[in-house]
Amino acid sequence: MSLLDTIHTPRDVKVLNRNQLKELAKEIRQTLVEVTANNGGHLASNLGVVELTIALHRVFDSPRDRFIFDVSHQIYTHKLLTGRNDAKFRQIRTSGGYSGFSDPTESEHDAFVAGHAGTALSVALGFAYARDHISNRKDSHIVAILGDGSLTCGMTLEALNNLVTTTKRLIVVVNDNEFSIDRNVGAISIYLNKILISGLYRAISQATKKMLGDGKFGKAVVRGIRRLKRAIKSIILPTSYFEYYGLRYFGPIDGHDISKLEEILEFCKFAKVPVLVHVKTIKGYGNGDAIHFPEKFHGIEPERERDVTASQEDTTSYGEILGKELTKLAQKDKTIIGVVAAMARGTGLSYLREHCPDQYVDVGIAEEHAVTFSAALAKGGMRPVCAIYSTFLQRAFDQVLHDVCLQNLPIVFCLDRAGIAVHDGMTHHGIFDLSYLRLIPHAVILQPRDVQEFVNALHSAFQWHCPVFIRYPKSCKQKIDANILGFSQYLPFGKAEKIAEGRRVCFFALGNMVDLANEVCQGLKDFGIRGGIVNAIFAKPLDEEILRDIAKNYELVVTLEDNVLMGGFGSAILEFYSDNGIKINVLRYGWPDEFIKHGTSLDILRVEHGLSATNIMNKVLSTLNIHIS
Amino acid sequence: MSLLDTIHTPRDVKVLNRNQLKELAKEIRQTLVEVTANNGGHLASNLGVVELTIALHRVFDSPRDRFIFDVSHQIYTHKLLTGRNDAKFRQIRTSGGYSGFSDPTESEHDAFVAGHAGTALSVALGFAYARDHISNRKDSHIVAILGDGSLTCGMTLEALNNLVTTTKRLIVVVNDNEFSIDRNVGAISIYLNKILISGLYRAISQATKKMLGDGKFGKAVVRGIRRLKRAIKSIILPTSYFEYYGLRYFGPIDGHDISKLEEILEFCKFAKVPVLVHVKTIKGYGNGDAIHFPEKFHGIEPERERDVTASQEDTTSYGEILGKELTKLAQKDKTIIGVVAAMARGTGLSYLREHCPDQYVDVGIAEEHAVTFSAALAKGGMRPVCAIYSTFLQRAFDQVLHDVCLQNLPIVFCLDRAGIAVHDGMTHHGIFDLSYLRLIPHAVILQPRDVQEFVNALHSAFQWHCPVFIRYPKSCKQKIDANILGFSQYLPFGKAEKIAEGRRVCFFALGNMVDLANEVCQGLKDFGIRGGIVNAIFAKPLDEEILRDIAKNYELVVTLEDNVLMGGFGSAILEFYSDNGIKINVLRYGWPDEFIKHGTSLDILRVEHGLSATNIMNKVLSTLNIHIS
Repeated sequence: MSLLDTIHTPRDVKVLNRNQLKELAKEIRQTLVEVTANNGGHLASNLGVVELTIALHRVFDSPRDRFIFDVSHQIYTHKLLTGRNDAKFRQIRTSGGYSGFSDPTESEHDAFVAGHAGTALSVALGFAYARDHISNRKDSHIVAILGDGSLTCGMTLEALNNLVTTTKRLIVVVNDNEFSIDRNVGAISIYLNKILISGLYRAISQATKKMLGDGKFGKAVVRGIRRLKRAIKSIILPTSYFEYYGLRYFGPIDGHDISKLEEILEFCKFAKVPVLVHVKTIKGYGNGDAIHFPEKFHGIEPERERDVTASQEDTTSYGEILGKELTKLAQKDKTIIGVVAAMARGTGLSYLREHCPDQYVDVGIAEEHAVTFSAALAKGGMRPVCAIYSTFLQRAFDQVLHDVCLQNLPIVFCLDRAGIAVHDGMTHHGIFDLSYLRLIPHAVILQPRDVQEFVNALHSAFQWHCPVFIRYPKSCKQKIDANILGFSQYLPFGKAEKIAEGRRVCFFALGNMVDLANEVCQGLKDFGIRGGIVNAIFAKPLDEEILRDIAKNYELVVTLEDNVLMGGFGSAILEFYSDNGIKINVLRYGWPDEFIKHGTSLDILRVEHGLSATNIMNKVLSTLNIHIS
Repeated sequence: MSLLDTIHTPRDVKVLNRNQLKELAKEIRQTLVEVTANNGGHLASNLGVVELTIALHRVFDSPRDRFIFDVSHQIYTHKLLTGRNDAKFRQIRTSGGYSGFSDPTESEHDAFVAGHAGTALSVALGFAYARDHISNRKDSHIVAILGDGSLTCGMTLEALNNLVTTTKRLIVVVNDNEFSIDRNVGAISIYLNKILISGLYRAISQATKKMLGDGKFGKAVVRGIRRLKRAIKSIILPTSYFEYYGLRYFGPIDGHDISKLEEILEFCKFAKVPVLVHVKTIKGYGNGDAIHFPEKFHGIEPERERDVTASQEDTTSYGEILGKELTKLAQKDKTIIGVVAAMARGTGLSYLREHCPDQYVDVGIAEEHAVTFSAALAKGGMRPVCAIYSTFLQRAFDQVLHDVCLQNLPIVFCLDRAGIAVHDGMTHHGIFDLSYLRLIPHAVILQPRDVQEFVNALHSAFQWHCPVFIRYPKSCKQKIDANILGFSQYLPFGKAEKIAEGRRVCFFALGNMVDLANEVCQGLKDFGIRGGIVNAIFAKPLDEEILRDIAKNYELVVTLEDNVLMGGFGSAILEFYSDNGIKINVLRYGWPDEFIKHGTSLDILRVEHGLSATNIMNKVLSTLNIHIS
């Protein structure tokens, strides 16, 4: 029996000795590597916080004390130490398994839901305020654990500004691995880095160690010099940035030294002011590959899927296509510029960064700034392409409305991960954008059905002088060589495409749902029904001509969208028909009005939520009064 | 002819002498007081920046150099100096007049739209980047002018973090009047205050002036001491907060001394690094009332409307009712807490602050933090009431979705200024919330039709353990004594209220639109039609029973909402009928898919956009095939 298997509650961690802790860390790393190899997930960041998480559970008393993990993709070790080292952990991020993020419905040790960056400090302040004012556990601790990347995030800074007036007792652990998702950017990261690489600090530290070795005399000298170093440090290092915000700063601490971490965290328990502990960790620690390619290993694909991909060779990443195609465009037009919020790799724009570094800006985890910055770039004569995941663009809803669309500015928004995100679950599905963008005047929204149409859409967007939102899932179910693929033709603005003529029922499908429409039509053939199929392409504006046409020629329209039904694409169709006094039956298919959990595959999630081809077919048949014997 | 009348372009300001400048400032103040007395608007903040704006136009060369006013409510003097001292300025904030905010469609001197706080730095960075990379005016200047309140705003801080890596040439003017909308909060404001009230700095300055008078010798001594003071200041004052962000700090400068302002701004033009000029102004400067009650005079009502209110005594402020009613509730339940984002007076929670200061938190202009902080308060056992204007809650869309609704947390959101904001115009109308909230699972949305129903809704919201969004306009067309008004009964969850039975046509109206429904029904009587009226109360969930009932008994449903039609309340009705296979004609009334300008009155804007009672009546009649002779 492994040591990890003897850990059922955090109490079991507290009794281990130093050697056992080392063994525990090793076993946890092994488990992390195995599980993420099977199920995907955030390997590198989880490897980086094994010791930190162990130390937290030894010093504090969860759930009485609350840990607030920012983003919470680094929560795996915490799950393992809080009674979740079980079969569901082996199924993490798949149907029936645990979530890859913090989830209070799983365990009382998960204090709050998280998934989007930058919420931890606000959450911690809320908990601290409630504790100070109404709780009977006034001596309990609130510990926020955030990556340095979250320090670039506006809401973290809003919370930081409110910290000193909200509570006197809060512990903030900044897990500094010099990465958010990609390599960090901006002043704060430069600042943190300054602390770490300060010439005097580091040079003295390393030189003395080397010179003096491990002898007794040597150690005494090291201690003396260390004291001197500390004195110098307090004068020359700008450690007081956080002190402007009323936090006492401690650090940097080696985040892989459990004893040191325990020592400082124990000390923090008795602080009478909010404290910030700057912990230095190595992303991917304990795993060669993950250390050397932390960006690549930030989030990895399940091995299963990688195998499938390898054997069937049937998918193409939209991000890869975007990177290559945008680079071609940018090389021809110097006003084109890519803007990302810490997602160079995820969005595919790392390719642009490599080939046109002057036409690429990464603003860090700062979607609000990314969007309004892009708005001014556009107003200043540039052609920005703002590449942000659908779920993260929610952060910049007001900026899209107030800074971009109000002025009808020509920005191309590339919304990757639109639709169901499958493994990342509730906090990450991009299933709201059609609804939250459609309500905004001037917004043009489209979803290509495949990568060729995507390339055409991208080129076309530059022809239209308005905000264009192109949404698409992570990948397309086709294997296309990105080097061969090229622009073929401009999309006619606001025009849908007839794919198949039929009778009685017509499917009006958006993007990836055209394939589902095809599938349903295949099934309908057995019942003598030939369904018409229209590839809508645009969610806004709608192709009114084709919609009138459909109403004339069919008795039933089925709308299909990879978005919530509330206020989405299907609703737009209802609005059009109703406002124009056109009477036709409409069946709408999309995601229901609930938060959808993670799952093993898109197909499984579709089946669970009534979006299987069979289910749709049956409903169409019954609506057409065709009875299945 | 006044001096102001000779100013047609900023060039005309440059040639004035010192005395003329004083006279100009005086005339501008006079104009501001007159115009805001007639039309309402942001008097105090505009009075505060008269000299600053004059200095900016003397030193820089707009529109070649670009001024980015944050929020831009302080833009009146700029409008007067850039060719807009005309009849339209006298009609500012009314139909046909200028906007009360920056509007590039009015003048090339308005570089960018603004209205929501915190966008200026992002905009300035975008312009600076475009200038540095593609412009042929590489020597032009970008000047961002922001209030100290905007420094609490997340997106300002995101931009600040990106500043040093984006451009080397940017001038940031922080107009520090110790107020955002209400008195400022948080660490940054404490920090700015520290600079200003630093004992050494101020004491020396004042004491020496007093002692030495204006003599020649005295002046020399003052100069000597000033030099000493500067030396001390650079050691003891924490002026380097902004220097962490790569900005060279200058200040504080007296914001009412045009010569000093010109001197420092001229100097900044040649800076090789981004600079921040900390300008100290007095909100309401030059006007006794506005100085002493800056919060009250931040935004004022047109005198005309005040007269109307006084004579007809027919409106009641929802905010006033909220403040008083919430205070009663809070006094009984210590877990209840009000959270505002710099809007104590506007939301009415200043009353709670006064009576239950321990159950009130103002987080500053920081809606994102306000919402997620409230989420954790709720999770920690408290009952937060988060009072944010409808238009500003757009800033926290992701937090509402990801931090509140995903966990179904019991927070009562009070969305003031929902619907058309009339005078503030495009950037401030609260006409999107029904659409952007309805798409979120677990959200409960209601709009009471009057203040009594509002009080009942507020009490009821605490009975429901979920996120409740109560939206309402600024005031209700009834005169109610807030001291007499009290809770009368709980609203049945998700239930609409039948107000009038009728035949053929039924009006399904939300909130303030019930009155409009009544008006239309009055008109229909002349044509022998008795319209049914349902007060919907809930926009989500819908009262499905009553909707089925209506479909059985009427041939036409008319939905009325003070929200955009795209994805709004009317769409929800269409969705319900379509999804349940119920066939009935629906006419939807609400705001069209465009950005609505400011206007003289709600009625005028309604008429302009097809929302007059007559227009609706005529459409109903023609739909019912009743022809008007």
